[in-house]
Amino acid sequence: MTVTSVRRSSTLAPDATEFSARHIGPTSETAATMLETLGYDSLAELVDAAVPEAIRQPEPLNLPEALSEAETLQALRGYAEKNQPRTQMIGQGFYDTHTPQVILRNVLQNPAWYTAYTPYQPEISQGRLEALLNFQTMVADLTGLDIANASLLDEASAVAEAILLMRRGNKKRATAKIVLDADIFPQTLAVVAGRADALGIEIETVDIAADGLPDGEICGLVLQQPANSGAVVDHRAVIAEAKERGAMVTIAADLLALTLITSPGEQGADIAVGSSQRFGVPLFFGGPHAAFMAVKSGLQRQLPGRLVGVSKDAEGRPAYRLALQTREQHIRREKATSNICTAQALLAVAASMYAVYHGPEGLTRIAKRVHGHARTLATALRAAGQELVAESFFDTVQVRLDSHDQAEKVIAAAEAAGVNLRRVSEDVVGISTDETTTPAQLSAVAQAFGVKDSLEASSQAETTAQDQDFAFPESLTRTSEFMTHPIFHEVRSETQMMRYLRRLSDRDLALDRTMIPLGSCTMKLNAATEMEAISWPEFAGIHPYAPATQTTGWREMIADLEARLAEVTGYAAVSIQPNAGSQGEYAGLLAIRQYHLAQGDAARDICLIPASAHGTNASSAVLAGLQVVVVATAEDGTIDMADMEAKIAAHPDRIAAIMLTYPSTHGVYETEVREVCAKIHATGGQVYIDGANLNALVGLAQPGEFGGDVSHLNLHKTFCIPHGGGGPGVGPVAVAEHLKPFLPSTSVGASWATGEHEGEGRDGAPVTATPFGSAGVLPISWAYLAMMGSEGLTSATAHALLSANYIAAKLKEHFPTLYTGEHGLIAHECILDLRELTKASGITAEDVCKRLIDYGFHAPTLAFPVNGTLMVEPTESEDLAEIDRFIAAMIGVRAEIQDIIEERISAAESPLRLAPHPAAVVAGDAWDRAYPREQAAFPVRNLLQNKYFPPVSRIDGAHGDRNLVCSCPPPEAFELEESTA
Amino acid sequence: MTVTSVRRSSTLAPDATEFSARHIGPTSETAATMLETLGYDSLAELVDAAVPEAIRQPEPLNLPEALSEAETLQALRGYAEKNQPRTQMIGQGFYDTHTPQVILRNVLQNPAWYTAYTPYQPEISQGRLEALLNFQTMVADLTGLDIANASLLDEASAVAEAILLMRRGNKKRATAKIVLDADIFPQTLAVVAGRADALGIEIETVDIAADGLPDGEICGLVLQQPANSGAVVDHRAVIAEAKERGAMVTIAADLLALTLITSPGEQGADIAVGSSQRFGVPLFFGGPHAAFMAVKSGLQRQLPGRLVGVSKDAEGRPAYRLALQTREQHIRREKATSNICTAQALLAVAASMYAVYHGPEGLTRIAKRVHGHARTLATALRAAGQELVAESFFDTVQVRLDSHDQAEKVIAAAEAAGVNLRRVSEDVVGISTDETTTPAQLSAVAQAFGVKDSLEASSQAETTAQDQDFAFPESLTRTSEFMTHPIFHEVRSETQMMRYLRRLSDRDLALDRTMIPLGSCTMKLNAATEMEAISWPEFAGIHPYAPATQTTGWREMIADLEARLAEVTGYAAVSIQPNAGSQGEYAGLLAIRQYHLAQGDAARDICLIPASAHGTNASSAVLAGLQVVVVATAEDGTIDMADMEAKIAAHPDRIAAIMLTYPSTHGVYETEVREVCAKIHATGGQVYIDGANLNALVGLAQPGEFGGDVSHLNLHKTFCIPHGGGGPGVGPVAVAEHLKPFLPSTSVGASWATGEHEGEGRDGAPVTATPFGSAGVLPISWAYLAMMGSEGLTSATAHALLSANYIAAKLKEHFPTLYTGEHGLIAHECILDLRELTKASGITAEDVCKRLIDYGFHAPTLAFPVNGTLMVEPTESEDLAEIDRFIAAMIGVRAEIQDIIEERISAAESPLRLAPHPAAVVAGDAWDRAYPREQAAFPVRNLLQNKYFPPVSRIDGAHGDRNLVCSCPPPEAFELEESTA
Repeated sequence: MTVTSVRRSSTLAPDATEFSARHIGPTSETAATMLETLGYDSLAELVDAAVPEAIRQPEPLNLPEALSEAETLQALRGYAEKNQPRTQMIGQGFYDTHTPQVILRNVLQNPAWYTAYTPYQPEISQGRLEALLNFQTMVADLTGLDIANASLLDEASAVAEAILLMRRGNKKRATAKIVLDADIFPQTLAVVAGRADALGIEIETVDIAADGLPDGEICGLVLQQPANSGAVVDHRAVIAEAKERGAMVTIAADLLALTLITSPGEQGADIAVGSSQRFGVPLFFGGPHAAFMAVKSGLQRQLPGRLVGVSKDAEGRPAYRLALQTREQHIRREKATSNICTAQALLAVAASMYAVYHGPEGLTRIAKRVHGHARTLATALRAAGQELVAESFFDTVQVRLDSHDQAEKVIAAAEAAGVNLRRVSEDVVGISTDETTTPAQLSAVAQAFGVKDSLEASSQAETTAQDQDFAFPESLTRTSEFMTHPIFHEVRSETQMMRYLRRLSDRDLALDRTMIPLGSCTMKLNAATEMEAISWPEFAGIHPYAPATQTTGWREMIADLEARLAEVTGYAAVSIQPNAGSQGEYAGLLAIRQYHLAQGDAARDICLIPASAHGTNASSAVLAGLQVVVVATAEDGTIDMADMEAKIAAHPDRIAAIMLTYPSTHGVYETEVREVCAKIHATGGQVYIDGANLNALVGLAQPGEFGGDVSHLNLHKTFCIPHGGGGPGVGPVAVAEHLKPFLPSTSVGASWATGEHEGEGRDGAPVTATPFGSAGVLPISWAYLAMMGSEGLTSATAHALLSANYIAAKLKEHFPTLYTGEHGLIAHECILDLRELTKASGITAEDVCKRLIDYGFHAPTLAFPVNGTLMVEPTESEDLAEIDRFIAAMIGVRAEIQDIIEERISAAESPLRLAPHPAAVVAGDAWDRAYPREQAAFPVRNLLQNKYFPPVSRIDGAHGDRNLVCSCPPPEAFELEESTA
Repeated sequence: MTVTSVRRSSTLAPDATEFSARHIGPTSETAATMLETLGYDSLAELVDAAVPEAIRQPEPLNLPEALSEAETLQALRGYAEKNQPRTQMIGQGFYDTHTPQVILRNVLQNPAWYTAYTPYQPEISQGRLEALLNFQTMVADLTGLDIANASLLDEASAVAEAILLMRRGNKKRATAKIVLDADIFPQTLAVVAGRADALGIEIETVDIAADGLPDGEICGLVLQQPANSGAVVDHRAVIAEAKERGAMVTIAADLLALTLITSPGEQGADIAVGSSQRFGVPLFFGGPHAAFMAVKSGLQRQLPGRLVGVSKDAEGRPAYRLALQTREQHIRREKATSNICTAQALLAVAASMYAVYHGPEGLTRIAKRVHGHARTLATALRAAGQELVAESFFDTVQVRLDSHDQAEKVIAAAEAAGVNLRRVSEDVVGISTDETTTPAQLSAVAQAFGVKDSLEASSQAETTAQDQDFAFPESLTRTSEFMTHPIFHEVRSETQMMRYLRRLSDRDLALDRTMIPLGSCTMKLNAATEMEAISWPEFAGIHPYAPATQTTGWREMIADLEARLAEVTGYAAVSIQPNAGSQGEYAGLLAIRQYHLAQGDAARDICLIPASAHGTNASSAVLAGLQVVVVATAEDGTIDMADMEAKIAAHPDRIAAIMLTYPSTHGVYETEVREVCAKIHATGGQVYIDGANLNALVGLAQPGEFGGDVSHLNLHKTFCIPHGGGGPGVGPVAVAEHLKPFLPSTSVGASWATGEHEGEGRDGAPVTATPFGSAGVLPISWAYLAMMGSEGLTSATAHALLSANYIAAKLKEHFPTLYTGEHGLIAHECILDLRELTKASGITAEDVCKRLIDYGFHAPTLAFPVNGTLMVEPTESEDLAEIDRFIAAMIGVRAEIQDIIEERISAAESPLRLAPHPAAVVAGDAWDRAYPREQAAFPVRNLLQNKYFPPVSRIDGAHGDRNLVCSCPPPEAFELEESTA
């Protein structure tokens, strides 16, 4: 390979494009200052020194010329205008809903909410943790189960997770078959089939209503309520039978229906899963939406995903934090309950607020109206002689027509009247009502079936569940209370909701107030222009299974995004279907596995994973049916080549893949990456390059070019989708030519899909419920790529390197950087090694994290990838003043550590150990600390101008895990605290 | 009049409509609790007891059925689709601009900014005061003058204000004529003519360039730069001559042009005025936009409108507050420098942030591009043989065509290509370039003139001011620096801007965090749905003088809004043109004056104004050419009828009008209002009913029905336009049938207007520069009316009464209510009388206001209408919990006063006098106060959960007025403070 000089012709100026000047924090002037500190004359020189020649891409990225912010909005308007928002009565798990504008504006459009990180640092996350606890309480109440998580990625993968949970929870029958009712959404069946196939799980799909439970040992049973057909059936008998036979039972349920229907818990289920989309979250062409899982007590340690719990802080105040984290991939790796990392926190917050705003009586009213509409329609259709598929339903009426032709005619007539119906099968048409349904729409639908009369009058009245045709069986009428906690009864006016949202977000630190220097998480700017389009009705109001002819804009935009991402990464094709990094990993590894199988290489079942890898890697490999073999790390942080060769030699024909992160999670460009890739290829394996650190590569090097066969990207890292307090994320999978056929199929669930999308020829198992996953947030990444262009992207990468190296250099004397690469430089993040200081002072990296809160900073990444260290990634978006503020804070912390080392204060008494300091403490009457109040609250003077106080002191996480409470504590819990404060 | 029982059929339930349940704070349950406290069984009963039978309206409001939030957005989309956003090259004072999305989202769409009140309480307003100080600094720098205000209503009325200022400032020649250059925008000339006519000011409009200054004594000269014709002329000579002759000089200037052109101050002007619209504020179909005025040192005490100044707080910290308030109407009444109260604070904030974001070099770059585009076009047109009106211009090229037909053809051709040009006169066409202009648009324009070549290539380069044709004369090329303060150089990345906006808004208390219980200001919910449409391009992107055929949606919506407001108030017609309450008053009084003149009643020149009236009333009367005669207040707070009759008797034929506020500013429904009206009518006068307190009437009584001839409304009070930290506001004027012809003309400035709007037949002087004033925010009020409907509006009024009476009752023992009406009830606000307590304790009402900050509350209205009192208005939007929280705070304050009365602590040492308490104080190392820290910071325990700390201690306003600083202090000022803190 010849490295041309093309890259050196790039100016790497922060204002390479109009927008890049806004996206990139340093200016030409401040960048020059930073370069001076590092001893380089230009950014190009620094880049050349830092990035190994061997991996540099030969040519600049071939991307369209950068657009301005205004041009980008115009281009997005162009795409939007090619979509046709219609009345969406397709249903099938996705229902239109009224997003309360107060929630849309103050959550989904408010950076205080959407720029927040996952709440690993609970002291600065009390607001969103409370919102997520509300979500869990609501789900647990509605499902009639004990503990709910927050949250999962979509209903289909939630069912898959439930199956895995049943296998873990039902140890005696772990290898027995899983029985699925046939009356489950087809997209769920498709996703489950792929997952089961990868893991060799035996699945039997049966028509439970007709045939009952099958013979043989059963590990778990999955039912759906309401069913795919719309039918609402009392499952008690079959559940009782299944349990008697030693099986566990999962019900996929509709939360809104559960306000009227006896809950899964009351019907005997162990687990309930589903989507909270219709609680105020737009259709978003399929996602992101928060799915949920609730379980009976006893199963909580088997739960996948995030779980918020109540604990207490150092003063005994109730305080929220993530509970039972030892279940999770970031700690438990290949033994984790799930590979999920990013979930759908922001959407769970929105759904929880919808529930808070409507309360149980409001939700019930909405449910009755939806149900009433469906019954009105059913009554009219039956009166007109139509054959209904089910006699008892919630919101979905399916009609069996005499012929395929007739079904097509009805669907076409409805579409002409502006209504999308569901093409269930050859001769069955489905209609789902929802919160937005109007009598006029019902009439239009009835008319499409040939009913002439208006349904306006008959559907006006809110009906109760009992007093008409098509009522639920009495045994299914919900009688139990739900959402009895005061929070679901207190917030009824918009003013109250606005203030509640503000109050919660004020408790948290997000990017709108401070740098979040999280290594490996790339917390960069989420620009307002990037965020703007996602709530436009022409994007947000589209059903994932709407006819392709109505979604031309979406499909063109997505195809363009995939093409740009392929160019950025140097791969042949990209699928944006995976709705989180974990799903991207899974999809990528599955592609590798399928490729080997297609080659007749069934024996290749080992995935080599370096010790420094993200926990997700290992757990994803397991899900893809691979065995994890860990490759050691050498002294200098690079892959231990000898160990790798030994592992290859030990399993000569079983190496399916190696999973690398590049630059490595040690924050270093490893020079020998091409050699590693070559060795793996030589042994017949594939190379998976984790794109978590792509922010150090874009425009400089392409994983697909320097040796990768597959990568997944994190659009919520490098490509500006906000973290949302723990999701949404998008984890596209990018593959080389030979793996294209194994990309996830885009025909999942899409009865309408005409295959126009270039995704044709992708025959892998779908990993999410909809063709394009979390499509709703893709305009964000598209806008970023469009506004940055090749030069802007490359400049951003260079500035990310500059800022990370500047921090490492400035902190060198205070906190040594653990690993460095060529010329003593790092990539886009640095690992600050605190282990010697901890030995000398007793102060841990965690103490430093908590003390940084007093300085108004979110902590760096703690204890990953090396215990006792902090990983810092400033990204290109932070300006020099903010970076210097962080450096000053770290130096201040270092001085406080020195006070301990020199025995001026003990570790136990020091402000580091007793951090963080809430206002109630520093302004309290009592003060018996060994340091002054001002040192506690205002360790640097500029905090006097701009101070964030955490609402709680340090939280005792272990206490919470010992005394697990995962729903809202009663208000008295707080009063108690107040009176003793 | 017969009072029917219709009104009693209204349920007055908070959930009368879907939206009213969200708008109204109390629920049915909490309202019942409140009624119980008051001893009434139902809200209807309370209303019947509180509101005099004599004024009740006989029928419910006849308004369309209420819409849901979703239906309302749909209806607004319908209007929006009837507008046609085009490329707007009309200019004439309004230019398209790119609103930075980060500012749009985080200021104009963020309740933390838009729900804030006017910063009378500076300790909780430091954020917006800083933003406004930035505005003043930017304006002063760009105009080359010493002191600028923030802000005025529009450029046209700013010129009128400048004329009045010159008359005040040039005392020796106060009665001499004002000379206006003929080359000033026609809308400015029209507004000035109306103002001058009302006040008998002699105006002479001359073609200064051709004819020079006229003979005779001149008080003031007004020029415009760039001129209406687009011409950029060196005014130094004529200014020097005018000043030599003893005149003062005002230049109406374009801020963007001033980055390239020698400033007004450097040319010798005393005053500069203009609009900051093109600094990032959308066209908004004419407004709201912030106008400005800057003056030479020495004239500051003559400035109209708000002026932010720097002072210091109790610890000597620099702190901002409104300066020289004694100039203003709320203190100086009829002797005020202006009647302006609400200005355009939110828009001034937006414009200032645009300047902060671009900095001087960015603004200059934009200006050069705009200028370059105009020159490119001019070059092409001249090359094609077109005759240009001016040889030197900034952004506007005017072309004189051979005939009217030709001009029409060019305009039509451009319109067909999607570009609006200006029809300047019969044969002159104007083209104005702006920040958004593209080479393609220039080509389209040139093509409309018959030029075939593309201008794309020639307009690419940014040109300097000197190097081409049509350069400015060298003497006009700006050489002086501007915006040198660091704030204009520090914020370049979007992340920095997002954080700066958050940091500033966090310093302030707005409705998104707390009740703002301001009497007479009706700080109610500004719902997200109401706010949603204002930034849609189909509303925000329309030029005020766009062809009527392109603005059908706007015109239909406005006509409907006017009709609804007429129904609500019981008048024959409404004009929404006045862009603030003060302008509505002026327009209404002018209508009365014109009516009398039309009746031949020229002698009627006295306006009776009760002592309790808003200061604006008196100053508006003066502006309308009326003399103010004050009517005394009786013991019980009502109008002193005997005094009124005496005043009538003293001037039997001179009574033009009485200006009442109803309910009175004393918070009471005066029973004799019909009698008062009758007496005035009997003497030949007109009755003006100030609509400030309309929130106590809507649905219950109509001013137009119970005796008013004119009212103005405050859409930013009763009809939900947010206060925006001191504007925008809209002050429609409503009149009885006989005054309709005197409503403001809607043809102002609108060369395009075809008179399709129902405003035809309105022949009064225009009060603002555009036909529909601050049209941009009218969708807010339209949405409110649409969603509330008759029942919702009436219920809101009833709940406003309920909450006010509940507070008065709960606080009765602690703070007596000064005035009550029938049955001991008040209207929608109560005056808490602190005078006895002040006598007993030394603690003033102001002390109480400052102490309430520690409780997290914005203060009530201080010292209006009675000194030593607080006026409290909760509005219908506050829920019972928030009201009870306020009551608890007031009771807490009362207990602290008791501590002083009982000599447990002195007033000087008490937390009341030393309030408010910033974090830096309560968490400071030193604490020598006579009360504990927790009492200071957390006087009630729930503050531990949710605490707002003011950024400064009590501000010394007098210090700031003695040492006037009205531009940004250097950063060192704050450092100094920090080192001594």
